[in-house]
Amino acid sequence: MYDVNAVRRDFPILSREVHGRPLVYLDNGASAQKPQVVIDAMTRAYSDEYANVHRGLHYLSSVATEKYEATRSIIQRFLGAKSEEEVVFVSGSTMAINMVSYSWAAPRLQPGDEIVLSIMEHHANIVPWHFLRERQGVVLKWVDMEPDGSLDPERVIAAIGPKTKLVAVTHMSNVLGTVVDVKAIAAGAHAKGVPVLVDGSQSAVHMPIDVVDLDVDFFAITGHKLYGPTGSGALYAKAERWAEMRPFLGGGDMIREVRQDSVTYADPPLKFEAGTPAIVATIGLGVAIEYMESLGLDNIAAHEHRLRDYASERLGGLNWLNLQGTAPNKGAIFSFTMDGQAHPHDISTVVDRKGVAVRAGHHCAQPLMTRLGVTATCRASFGLYNTEAEVDALVGALETCHELFA
Amino acid sequence: MYDVNAVRRDFPILSREVHGRPLVYLDNGASAQKPQVVIDAMTRAYSDEYANVHRGLHYLSSVATEKYEATRSIIQRFLGAKSEEEVVFVSGSTMAINMVSYSWAAPRLQPGDEIVLSIMEHHANIVPWHFLRERQGVVLKWVDMEPDGSLDPERVIAAIGPKTKLVAVTHMSNVLGTVVDVKAIAAGAHAKGVPVLVDGSQSAVHMPIDVVDLDVDFFAITGHKLYGPTGSGALYAKAERWAEMRPFLGGGDMIREVRQDSVTYADPPLKFEAGTPAIVATIGLGVAIEYMESLGLDNIAAHEHRLRDYASERLGGLNWLNLQGTAPNKGAIFSFTMDGQAHPHDISTVVDRKGVAVRAGHHCAQPLMTRLGVTATCRASFGLYNTEAEVDALVGALETCHELFA
Repeated sequence: MYDVNAVRRDFPILSREVHGRPLVYLDNGASAQKPQVVIDAMTRAYSDEYANVHRGLHYLSSVATEKYEATRSIIQRFLGAKSEEEVVFVSGSTMAINMVSYSWAAPRLQPGDEIVLSIMEHHANIVPWHFLRERQGVVLKWVDMEPDGSLDPERVIAAIGPKTKLVAVTHMSNVLGTVVDVKAIAAGAHAKGVPVLVDGSQSAVHMPIDVVDLDVDFFAITGHKLYGPTGSGALYAKAERWAEMRPFLGGGDMIREVRQDSVTYADPPLKFEAGTPAIVATIGLGVAIEYMESLGLDNIAAHEHRLRDYASERLGGLNWLNLQGTAPNKGAIFSFTMDGQAHPHDISTVVDRKGVAVRAGHHCAQPLMTRLGVTATCRASFGLYNTEAEVDALVGALETCHELFA
Repeated sequence: MYDVNAVRRDFPILSREVHGRPLVYLDNGASAQKPQVVIDAMTRAYSDEYANVHRGLHYLSSVATEKYEATRSIIQRFLGAKSEEEVVFVSGSTMAINMVSYSWAAPRLQPGDEIVLSIMEHHANIVPWHFLRERQGVVLKWVDMEPDGSLDPERVIAAIGPKTKLVAVTHMSNVLGTVVDVKAIAAGAHAKGVPVLVDGSQSAVHMPIDVVDLDVDFFAITGHKLYGPTGSGALYAKAERWAEMRPFLGGGDMIREVRQDSVTYADPPLKFEAGTPAIVATIGLGVAIEYMESLGLDNIAAHEHRLRDYASERLGGLNWLNLQGTAPNKGAIFSFTMDGQAHPHDISTVVDRKGVAVRAGHHCAQPLMTRLGVTATCRASFGLYNTEAEVDALVGALETCHELFA
């Protein structure tokens, strides 16, 4: 049985108040809070076991290296990758996707080559491809969503033409909560010989991932949404994709030999990890993932599905609230606007006074905003520690807001 | 008066033992230990004040943003920059120098254009330029050092020809401790119309920096060597250099507007800070710099000069030790090899058994190793908390090692 109250006690921040009210943190889509075990692991790493990694033979360097590298096998298991060598540490999914753009796509895409994207991508999975459009004439091909906010895999596959070199799609919309059938997309794309990059920033937080089963080529995750530290993350890629990539950042640790007139590179994953990494954040990310696994990834998903269903029902009952995104397969992420005068920023500010943290804005998804015919929405996004009572608190705060602006 | 024993009590790790001996941490050139105030600031940030920055209107997001952005003005003051907008947060100096390579140099350098480097650069200030050599035919021009390990600014300036587009030099060698007169180099380079990038990874730790007085174009620092968290750092550039740079990483926060067929960018510094940053590490870096300032940057430098002089005398008295780098102006970094059978790795391992942490290897400076005619050295690098007694401990451990391998 998933004991959400016990889970909540693992997160120190959840016992604090905001504006004299208990914190109701519903901004998990932007970033998640951290359990005590993660904070403690970072404190221990800095207080008792700290040194730089890889290059040292002394005791502390060995300890730090061992703890740091342990995260690689944790992520391998978490994502279902075949080998640790397919996991490269990055500062987050933005860095991960840029790495693919600079190291895999930029050297191989020619003017007129296409990248297929969905309309619901986050800017992290748009702007790196706009760079290739601006700098080398790559064409971005956009796939629209269905009216309910779902993404039809067949439409994505149909958009793949002879000039398409990559499909880059999210696994879960950060605005709509839509879960995308990336397995079907990968199957269709591979049948046409095209690799698939998946932005797993949201999905890996809310559902078990198996990159081998999904058969995707690239999968990006970001630590701070996974209840881990900021500045941590990973890029999974199939070994054959890594083999096709030139290095991204140059510096220490990623080389085999540097001379005045030549340089040779280490094998992946080190080839793609230049310089002193975010050692302690990466250690913390490993602990965060182990924490999620200790709760059970299926249990977390089931808990969040209950929250989603309850929130859908409660929010759906507010006839002055315009909910965006009602795909049958969606996570507990709700974007909405309100009839009348209340701008999303107003809503966010008013509910904040009730202790409820939601986000307002374009959520780094401006093409989707344009598609929805809005400039901004308000978004409530749930995590493993949220409760049905917090859904009620959100609804109550929204009702207050509605009365204020009616 | 600089009370090093009081300073030591600020660093929890310094009270631990290694192999049953008190830790003597002399691997500061690789990474420095963290004071309790930094660890506490990170714990507080995660336990009580955590949310994503910039995009949120709710209380926690405002608090986190304020604390995060405060580090920008701390770094501005620390480096003597004219404006906060000249300070961009990065994950470390490797990222900083790669940003200059990708965003400033790559779009403007033509085949045959030259970059002038010194022989004592760290791979972080070599490999990004090798990329430009491999990918677009840029020529690397190397400036040799003097026999004592100093770098003559006139030789650097003399190497600048009509095809030179950038001078990229370290401010302090991570192997030899040599302090480079980057002010003279910048004056000479600017007289020839060439900008100067300075790798301040080591120097900013050991001496006060004033980028306006030095008049350098780019200056990179890395947080983990500055007694701050891993995964933090900053790139300073003159406003006119930032204005010349195209964006590096694409994603959230660095845009003005994203459409399906176009993208416009935010102004610096945000233009160069894509995605969720290393929020808490950056907060910690600000606290680390404030901690250093509370001790007094001049006081730290004076303390380390005493250590340097004492260590020079003690190590210089060991006639079986070959010290590399005896420039008159150098920091407390000592690289050495030993007569006879002891490989640097052996030395490191033996002294580690005495609790003394030193580094062995090529120190990410292979061209310098080649120049010195070695494949590796042993390196003892001092920080603000080290003592003369620790110099004695190092000497004692080296004597044991010498006897073992004699």
